[in-house]
Amino acid sequence: MPTTPYDPPELEAGTLRIVPLGGLGEVGRNMTVFEYGGKLLVVDCGVLFPEEHQPGVDLILPDFEPLKKRLDDIVGVVLTHGHEDHIGAVPYLLKLKSDIPIIGSGLTLALTEAKLKEHRIKPYSLTVAEGQRENLGPFELEFVAVNHSIPDALAVAIRTPAGLVLATGDFKMDQLPLDGRLTDLRAFSRLGEEGVDLFLVDSTNADVPGFTPLERSIGPVLDQVIGKAPRRVIVASFSSHVHRVQQVLDAAAAHGRRVALLGRSMLRNMTIAEDLGYLHVPEGVLIDYKKARDLPDDQIVYMSTGSQGEPMAVLSRMANLDHAIEPGPGDTVILASSLIPGNENAVYRVIDGLTKLGANVVHKGNAKVHVSGHAAAGELLYCYNILKPKNVLPVHGEYRHLMANARLAQDTGIDPERTILAENGTVIDLKDGGAHVVGQYDLGFVYVDGSTVGEITDADLKDRRILGEEGFISVIVVVDASTGKIISGPEVHARGFAEDDAVFEDVKPKIAAALAEAAKSGVRDQHALSQIVRRTIGRWVNQSLRRRPMIVPLVIEA
Amino acid sequence: MPTTPYDPPELEAGTLRIVPLGGLGEVGRNMTVFEYGGKLLVVDCGVLFPEEHQPGVDLILPDFEPLKKRLDDIVGVVLTHGHEDHIGAVPYLLKLKSDIPIIGSGLTLALTEAKLKEHRIKPYSLTVAEGQRENLGPFELEFVAVNHSIPDALAVAIRTPAGLVLATGDFKMDQLPLDGRLTDLRAFSRLGEEGVDLFLVDSTNADVPGFTPLERSIGPVLDQVIGKAPRRVIVASFSSHVHRVQQVLDAAAAHGRRVALLGRSMLRNMTIAEDLGYLHVPEGVLIDYKKARDLPDDQIVYMSTGSQGEPMAVLSRMANLDHAIEPGPGDTVILASSLIPGNENAVYRVIDGLTKLGANVVHKGNAKVHVSGHAAAGELLYCYNILKPKNVLPVHGEYRHLMANARLAQDTGIDPERTILAENGTVIDLKDGGAHVVGQYDLGFVYVDGSTVGEITDADLKDRRILGEEGFISVIVVVDASTGKIISGPEVHARGFAEDDAVFEDVKPKIAAALAEAAKSGVRDQHALSQIVRRTIGRWVNQSLRRRPMIVPLVIEA
Repeated sequence: MPTTPYDPPELEAGTLRIVPLGGLGEVGRNMTVFEYGGKLLVVDCGVLFPEEHQPGVDLILPDFEPLKKRLDDIVGVVLTHGHEDHIGAVPYLLKLKSDIPIIGSGLTLALTEAKLKEHRIKPYSLTVAEGQRENLGPFELEFVAVNHSIPDALAVAIRTPAGLVLATGDFKMDQLPLDGRLTDLRAFSRLGEEGVDLFLVDSTNADVPGFTPLERSIGPVLDQVIGKAPRRVIVASFSSHVHRVQQVLDAAAAHGRRVALLGRSMLRNMTIAEDLGYLHVPEGVLIDYKKARDLPDDQIVYMSTGSQGEPMAVLSRMANLDHAIEPGPGDTVILASSLIPGNENAVYRVIDGLTKLGANVVHKGNAKVHVSGHAAAGELLYCYNILKPKNVLPVHGEYRHLMANARLAQDTGIDPERTILAENGTVIDLKDGGAHVVGQYDLGFVYVDGSTVGEITDADLKDRRILGEEGFISVIVVVDASTGKIISGPEVHARGFAEDDAVFEDVKPKIAAALAEAAKSGVRDQHALSQIVRRTIGRWVNQSLRRRPMIVPLVIEA
Repeated sequence: MPTTPYDPPELEAGTLRIVPLGGLGEVGRNMTVFEYGGKLLVVDCGVLFPEEHQPGVDLILPDFEPLKKRLDDIVGVVLTHGHEDHIGAVPYLLKLKSDIPIIGSGLTLALTEAKLKEHRIKPYSLTVAEGQRENLGPFELEFVAVNHSIPDALAVAIRTPAGLVLATGDFKMDQLPLDGRLTDLRAFSRLGEEGVDLFLVDSTNADVPGFTPLERSIGPVLDQVIGKAPRRVIVASFSSHVHRVQQVLDAAAAHGRRVALLGRSMLRNMTIAEDLGYLHVPEGVLIDYKKARDLPDDQIVYMSTGSQGEPMAVLSRMANLDHAIEPGPGDTVILASSLIPGNENAVYRVIDGLTKLGANVVHKGNAKVHVSGHAAAGELLYCYNILKPKNVLPVHGEYRHLMANARLAQDTGIDPERTILAENGTVIDLKDGGAHVVGQYDLGFVYVDGSTVGEITDADLKDRRILGEEGFISVIVVVDASTGKIISGPEVHARGFAEDDAVFEDVKPKIAAALAEAAKSGVRDQHALSQIVRRTIGRWVNQSLRRRPMIVPLVIEA
């Protein structure tokens, strides 16, 4: 039940306006717009992956509607890190106006630029690092290091005369990170002392009690599993998880194994990460996949994509014996990743397939081979206590996550009225230390399907769900335009419905009779005749088979 | 990759043949056929619930094919307990021959008979209890009490001259069960001393280390949550979980609350359970739902279905404000159930909806409000050590569960060659203490959709998946039968595809041109013309939109 939309007032001078376009009430398509003095700053521009009630959709974009008439006012897009849910929609925004500058860390921009290249866009970009300050129109930006499941993530502090805002991006607070790059609590302290007027904070794990375990706790497990593996090892993880891949490379090197990277995105991202110095490949460990196949089984590790059971990814294809590498008895497969809700059945199908082939499958359910990239409740409490923000806007999460995060803020003493539970499109104005909801835009889901952007509507998806659950029956009748008499048909075709069109022999005379009756009464209108066909066959299929397929009547005049 | 089917030999005299028809490589539709001396005994006859790649399917039945010509040889169907995955397919078997006797405990038969009544079948039935022995043709049956998440579950020992078989049904070994009815390990010991030749054993939780916690560990949690709840309490669980409902009734009574049951199956099952003495309703605690609404908020508990996020069940409807009871701030909702894989997104949608309405949602993720009904690895080890079976056939589970169970058997010293990893349709012969795979039937999925049984094929489901992901485009052209010239059309209609049929204006001339060309070359065949239409529009949609909808060309001669 989204809030009823209402227009915000004109933006007053000296006020900062904040409008999240995505990422609230969902995990993905994070994007927030800041407006001051007639200029707009965008923080993040990500995609959301569809759920099962959005069939056939490739990606879901934030609704850019509030930006469309104001593209010239956008001073830049700050990207906090290189995950798809933060950078994936950049190409679609830049298709509206290709010279909007993008700002981010070295790795973040390299990953974004690789993505833009696929869309044949070469962006204006500015690489920044933690500690750096930049002015973009009226916005004074300061970047702060944060720790996440991808290197080089940044939080961003935004200063305007209306106050100081801190947006964390995604983060956690691993106190012994592999690359030594901590979430910079000294910077948080300094900003807290200056006075944070509004804190936009990652809520993904706000309902998880305690603390996210150390990323380095996984290393010994990987080391032990790889060390004891009798034959080949296949590790699947996210293709941007540089630190996870680093731990696999190190474990492989320690046990005299070489590593072959599999999957287009894994190869691309790790090449970028190595080139930029984020991935440290032990001397001679990487090997081309084609050469790897000549090595003895106990000297190879394959590092692949497909940890979410994606049917076209390397791991699923291996499990279906539809890949050059065919797992077998003695092989070890490690799923070093989370299990994103909704993917369970797909992942378990892959685990079963691999088990059936004889492989030993190690996963989150039976070994400590994954930790989250997001701050749990205990870590968030540290943040609130260090920052003591005046106002809090929990972002990045389903409603229950946002609510849990607001409660944590309140537990540290922040007034419930100053913890804002917003939705996508909520308009929040900040001035003189006060943050208030002043409007609600009516935003939708923008679906990407193939090269189509925004043409698939929710009505189309409803049709798809009906078609997918019940199939369709089409009835074609050619009638004489003047007499209304049937010239040809009724032909009845069905797909996704039953094995044999012979079941329709019963109903054809009923349709013909209904049309003849209508013709006799002088009905000539094509639409009216179509409705007669629809009702006749609809009633029959519902009563005789207790089913409700889509019915597509086509009455053609000739 | 199912095993290649091959025919078993004729069944030799003195040999027991075992054929699982369902429940192996899947969680559901449990059913096993035993054959001796020309007679057949069936143990369980359940349904499987469809996954997301089986859209629109209501239920999946075991493939009865091997039984169809031998219905007269069936001496009876033993039902181990009253869950859908053990009794749900009985009506469909009895539709083939309605006088096959069914045998089970009081509660099991009552639930089965209620189901059969909906199908207007009144069965021949025989109620049995633990300790009881019955002869059915050549099969000497002995029933043994087991503990499970429904009362009155039974294991069954089957004696024939070929040896002694023990089938557990579903079970766990709660050592302090609420009703005091333990899994009878004394009986297991006695059978073990007699010598169990083949042990068919529940694998559902074989890959879960340790022991399933006590059902009664939930009571204090429910008591505490209900005791502290400021307003209404809504508890959702499985409609057959008598003990869980019992604990809710007790907690409600302890805190001066009354309980209203919601949902057709909840009402039906609990009425049966109370009538048969399995549910002990504290004096005056139950109240009709309509009267409950007049009570003060802090004196009511609603007990409902819908714990798996089923869209039509009470809980989802409440979350969507589509039910007379509208949850709000201060209300407490308890999901006292497991989260079945594949249902995560649906359940989280319900949790989010309820949270957004202001309710406090207590679930497995944040409180100890559910324990499993199946024996974990530690419990299974006890069974193997007490029974010391000669041969083991793990049943009830995905392949990884069967495999984990076989490994447990091997850990207790059973020869790997005597732990049989079978599939549905595997034919196993038992004689002289030896169990051997001798054949493999080629079995399929039998889909129920509406009143249609077995007519939906895998090809229909593939069509549904394409339709559901991509929609369809139909092209209708009426041509002159003799000249091949277009009389009417092409008309192009699409559903689930794009918002506006105007996108097809581009392609219509291309179709007309392709057909004109074909007519010129003398092509008249309707099928050939249809293929030309399909190719023309298929190429266009793929190249211009990068999509692959189903294409339905209809060339009509007039």
